[in-house]
Amino acid sequence: MSAPKKDDAKALLKGVKKRNVRAIARMISLAEAAKPESRDVLAEIYRLAGRAHVIGLTGVPGSGKSTLVKALADAIRVSGRTVGIVAIDPSSPFSGGAILGDRIRMTDLTGDDGVFIRSMATRGAMGGLARASLEAVDVLDAAGFDIILIETVGVGQDEVDIVQAAHTVVVVSAPGLGDEVQAIKAGILEIADIHVVSKCDRSDANATIADIRGMLTLGIRMPKDHGLVHGKEEFEDKPPAADGEWRVEVVATSAETGDGIGELLDTLDAHAKHLNDTGGMEQRRRDIIEMRVIKTAEDIIRRDFKANHDKLAGLMNELMARTIDPHQAAATLLATFKYKEGKYKDGCED
Amino acid sequence: MSAPKKDDAKALLKGVKKRNVRAIARMISLAEAAKPESRDVLAEIYRLAGRAHVIGLTGVPGSGKSTLVKALADAIRVSGRTVGIVAIDPSSPFSGGAILGDRIRMTDLTGDDGVFIRSMATRGAMGGLARASLEAVDVLDAAGFDIILIETVGVGQDEVDIVQAAHTVVVVSAPGLGDEVQAIKAGILEIADIHVVSKCDRSDANATIADIRGMLTLGIRMPKDHGLVHGKEEFEDKPPAADGEWRVEVVATSAETGDGIGELLDTLDAHAKHLNDTGGMEQRRRDIIEMRVIKTAEDIIRRDFKANHDKLAGLMNELMARTIDPHQAAATLLATFKYKEGKYKDGCED
Repeated sequence: MSAPKKDDAKALLKGVKKRNVRAIARMISLAEAAKPESRDVLAEIYRLAGRAHVIGLTGVPGSGKSTLVKALADAIRVSGRTVGIVAIDPSSPFSGGAILGDRIRMTDLTGDDGVFIRSMATRGAMGGLARASLEAVDVLDAAGFDIILIETVGVGQDEVDIVQAAHTVVVVSAPGLGDEVQAIKAGILEIADIHVVSKCDRSDANATIADIRGMLTLGIRMPKDHGLVHGKEEFEDKPPAADGEWRVEVVATSAETGDGIGELLDTLDAHAKHLNDTGGMEQRRRDIIEMRVIKTAEDIIRRDFKANHDKLAGLMNELMARTIDPHQAAATLLATFKYKEGKYKDGCED
Repeated sequence: MSAPKKDDAKALLKGVKKRNVRAIARMISLAEAAKPESRDVLAEIYRLAGRAHVIGLTGVPGSGKSTLVKALADAIRVSGRTVGIVAIDPSSPFSGGAILGDRIRMTDLTGDDGVFIRSMATRGAMGGLARASLEAVDVLDAAGFDIILIETVGVGQDEVDIVQAAHTVVVVSAPGLGDEVQAIKAGILEIADIHVVSKCDRSDANATIADIRGMLTLGIRMPKDHGLVHGKEEFEDKPPAADGEWRVEVVATSAETGDGIGELLDTLDAHAKHLNDTGGMEQRRRDIIEMRVIKTAEDIIRRDFKANHDKLAGLMNELMARTIDPHQAAATLLATFKYKEGKYKDGCED
């Protein structure tokens, strides 16, 4: 992916703003490729972004994230809004799981220009995933999609960092994946603004709901006619907690029957409203941008190391002989890089 | 955790070399805390390391990694060797999963000074996990443990990077976690030197074995009397592939019955022998150290950002107003850090 020339960059930006599919795809590829020459146009993209409601969905493998994302995208379209999807889940049918013949196909979403789906490579890139993924979100945001869904597998430091760069974080759990609360096992229980129990058409869904409920003091929000046995009070919509804090909710869904998908969208909208009403959105944005700056700096360093691989090679013999340690080698290499304020230059030029 | 004074550092090093439990624990805490003052003693640790066989075990949540690690540690002890364990799995009973009352307890391993178990925090640290974990491995290596087991959850970029920093990588799968090959879903199929199918006492273990087998052209190595129905040829030990390449093996184990644990240890030893005989170990060490240098540089940058949080705060308003983008902010901050060759100084001093 070569970087765009100046006129080309202008045309590309124009294309993104018009929500042209090819322009969006190319711009995201520029973000992935991370060439210094693309920085200006990506900075422009960042300037244009900031309007979409960004929703992160995560859960352990097998929790039904991808199916849920598809159902949710359908519901968003039905509500008259547009939706962009960034899939960072190696098991997602959007990003490679399809080799196993996943049953979900996104074909009924393609051909609709109110939907854009992009999968991000998670293997082989060695890092840069967070920076590139969040720049992809910027591109979709700049393109004017109303809602952007980020799907990540709910295990792994980088993956959890990425999903937390959303305004609203949804943790998906499913029945039948073991006898313990999966979200706790994966360490992601506490990051949820909304819990979803997927596959609630299954008879063992109640146990999963009870498990999550047991771990949290939550208002349970259930689809009205799902047929599961719950106390009456759990079927009622409850307002956010009195002190202005968002009360984490549990939404039971079935992509199979469509149960709960509408309730989930309502809850997502309620969370966005809550953030906007309370000033919480401003704080989220600050937290997210701070994380992004750090991830971006790491990415710059990583690429400088790769670009200066010959210098590392010179240190390798010392490292192998253990006369220096990785920290001394890293510091030595860092000392060779020169950075200029506000501008990224490939290290060691200047 | 304050950094040691010079005499104290000497005593600490001496303690680690004598395999003193308190000294080892303190040294690993120094690695986690990552204070500049501790760099010299940790460089000394790196100099002392390099003798142990480092084995990484990974698998999706629920694959039975922790139970397997315990059984394997027992078998290593029975073989007359010592074992250090670094657990980086949020679901591990060593590192926090125990809040759920996991059935596995490590109590029968504690009190044996031929075993040392350390869990590493995976949440809240924001990065640094790979650097700290691999320095913890150095400490156990310097302490003279014969075999070091790294347990990580098998999903997530950092976690997979860490487990790949082992000489031998074991991917653990279990029956009953869904109808697809979990290792593929998690994207870790290809990193395995050895596949383990745990819980092979379960009746559905055959399907899991067949799934993995179906995905790979493998010699299947099974415990002799496990009672599972397999062709005769699969029960035979086979030599490594004729061309000197290691042939990835599948070992079926049951921590419940003890089946296959001995075979797994044999296969691990065979892999170490193979690496040493073919020069593969040298290449692994080079790959690992290169990755470590990059991870360490990232960690230095991340800590410099935190130490200079006030400067980032100055850029936050511009970021929020979108007059600069995260990349420009990152480059601006990087430009303020000064590094000296071979020495780590907190950024911006000098």
